[in-house]
Amino acid sequence: MPKLCLRIAISLDGFVAGPDQSVDDPIGVGGMRLHEWVFPLAAWRSTHGLEGGEVNESTPIIEEALANSGATIMGRKMFGGPAGEWDLANPWNGWWGDDPPFHHPVFVLTHHPREPLVLKGGTTFTFVTDGIESALAQARNAAGEKNISLAGGASACAQYLAAGHVDEMTLNLVPILLGSGERLFNGVGTDLHGLKLVRTIAAPSVTHLTFRR
Amino acid sequence: MPKLCLRIAISLDGFVAGPDQSVDDPIGVGGMRLHEWVFPLAAWRSTHGLEGGEVNESTPIIEEALANSGATIMGRKMFGGPAGEWDLANPWNGWWGDDPPFHHPVFVLTHHPREPLVLKGGTTFTFVTDGIESALAQARNAAGEKNISLAGGASACAQYLAAGHVDEMTLNLVPILLGSGERLFNGVGTDLHGLKLVRTIAAPSVTHLTFRR
Repeated sequence: MPKLCLRIAISLDGFVAGPDQSVDDPIGVGGMRLHEWVFPLAAWRSTHGLEGGEVNESTPIIEEALANSGATIMGRKMFGGPAGEWDLANPWNGWWGDDPPFHHPVFVLTHHPREPLVLKGGTTFTFVTDGIESALAQARNAAGEKNISLAGGASACAQYLAAGHVDEMTLNLVPILLGSGERLFNGVGTDLHGLKLVRTIAAPSVTHLTFRR
Repeated sequence: MPKLCLRIAISLDGFVAGPDQSVDDPIGVGGMRLHEWVFPLAAWRSTHGLEGGEVNESTPIIEEALANSGATIMGRKMFGGPAGEWDLANPWNGWWGDDPPFHHPVFVLTHHPREPLVLKGGTTFTFVTDGIESALAQARNAAGEKNISLAGGASACAQYLAAGHVDEMTLNLVPILLGSGERLFNGVGTDLHGLKLVRTIAAPSVTHLTFRR
């Protein structure tokens, strides 16, 4: 069965997004600092049609996420930002452009029904209004022999963690403080449902902590 | 000049103590789980008069803390727990027993004046009522050629971090969730005052992250 794999960047003080998310700051004020380690990597650049880039200790983290992911689950804000409800007469296509980097089915948790959105390169966004269990079942069907990426945001991740559905978790711990914003473990409680730390990779300006059960 | 070195155990969700601190749970419910990695270590056992124990990747962390520490600063609750104000007619001597493991001067941040407490083995507790700057100045005088340990709790650490006084910080990141309790970075803001991650040590059931500036 496909594994549900949470991979997310988190600050030293526990935030996966900064405060005051907006169209100008989709990850909140300072939130982009959580992702600066990834942009120079050749493994990331190639998925965005860019040549060159670095190879370092973080490279395997990117490669294994890309190599074995057959479906993605994300929250509504991660699809379409803080704009709230979309206008069904004139819906926009989210943050990800015409050719999103997923290249597989993406399931968006939302309370707002919408027809599936088929974009270039194999990415389809399916909007799931009947909860995390339904999205997980649909993602399992879509992933086939591969795994499912739980991409964020904080609320979606916390719900799957609290329900004990996360099979693997990689925290990309960035040694900065965001001060406020959205916490990954808010409401998760004290139970990691068997997730144990199995690998620590020290990379330039980020520490990768992988948990499996 | 002596460096101020913060060394503290922290959960994956950012807590350095659990909720509901009491005489029975001085580090809060579940808080002792933050320290389980340290008790089997020979380096720790020897400071408590115990023989034997393990040597592993955490050993240098304990050794360097002990080897070069000439004074300690801590908050009142870490000295004497959540009992609140002590009875000056019949003061108790805190959590640490007649022969505390410090063996050097300890400065306790408190609002409650009290005469210094001289115990066995070279540990004296001096109660500082005029703030963190005063405690730091007194600890610098006492430490001589050695460094100063900032031992906790959360509030004392946060105040020194926010003021930019911490020269070195080792977070002993324990892969558990406490769910609630006292957060290390509460109120610290977004400024690490030049503290950069310089060393990551993966040990059994704990990851040691050392920051220096």
